[in-house]
Amino acid sequence: MRHLLSRERVAELATVTAEGRPHLVPFCFALEGELLVSAVDEKPKRSRDLQRLANIRADPRVAVLAHRYDEDWSALWWVRVDGTAEIWEQGARYDHAIKLLVEKYEQYREAPPRGAVIAITIERWQGWSPGRSAPP
Amino acid sequence: MRHLLSRERVAELATVTAEGRPHLVPFCFALEGELLVSAVDEKPKRSRDLQRLANIRADPRVAVLAHRYDEDWSALWWVRVDGTAEIWEQGARYDHAIKLLVEKYEQYREAPPRGAVIAITIERWQGWSPGRSAPP
Repeated sequence: MRHLLSRERVAELATVTAEGRPHLVPFCFALEGELLVSAVDEKPKRSRDLQRLANIRADPRVAVLAHRYDEDWSALWWVRVDGTAEIWEQGARYDHAIKLLVEKYEQYREAPPRGAVIAITIERWQGWSPGRSAPP
Repeated sequence: MRHLLSRERVAELATVTAEGRPHLVPFCFALEGELLVSAVDEKPKRSRDLQRLANIRADPRVAVLAHRYDEDWSALWWVRVDGTAEIWEQGARYDHAIKLLVEKYEQYREAPPRGAVIAITIERWQGWSPGRSAPP
């Protein structure tokens, strides 16, 4: 599951709004041990979609999904992690998270993200593929 | 946004657990007007992942995301809908939902889903692509 998740280029982040509604965005991320990091491209005050940050500040519980669709449904799989998120704005751990993202995504080398880092400590791994309890 | 969502083969469904945690699964779906339907393959008592059904019974608010990843980040987009879900087990509307799914997915023609239908009434559409407020 770790191998599948770490090599994915995009995943989905689910948070919960202050009103208790689920919220969902696709995001780029990097994985290091049980730490999963992503970054907001723009400075928070300039971003037009800060809902994920507001949600995490109100409730840090998040879920992350990576999955593969194929018209051959025997080739489907998904990996999901549950965790607790923190928002990092600066400092050594912020810099390290940005470094992980820049190493994974050459797109970030040209324009490193300048906004907040969402740092998720993974607490639970789950996976599925047809006929298995965990993906291949 | 409707066109993009309706032609997608897979999307992600976010619900909230009774404990208020976000929950996330990929799913196949069909769209008709403001109705988005999906089905659980197995009879509920046989399914090993009924979390989404338990969540919807406790809180019907859901979010659905469809998105496109591309290494050219100027080609990214996502569409998200918020809605209210119901669980249908039988009857004319159940049969209609299964028909919509079988029409969209030839995989279902060989083995139509036999479990509950999740029927989502869409209340809000949102979309994003780089430099736009809505996807292309």
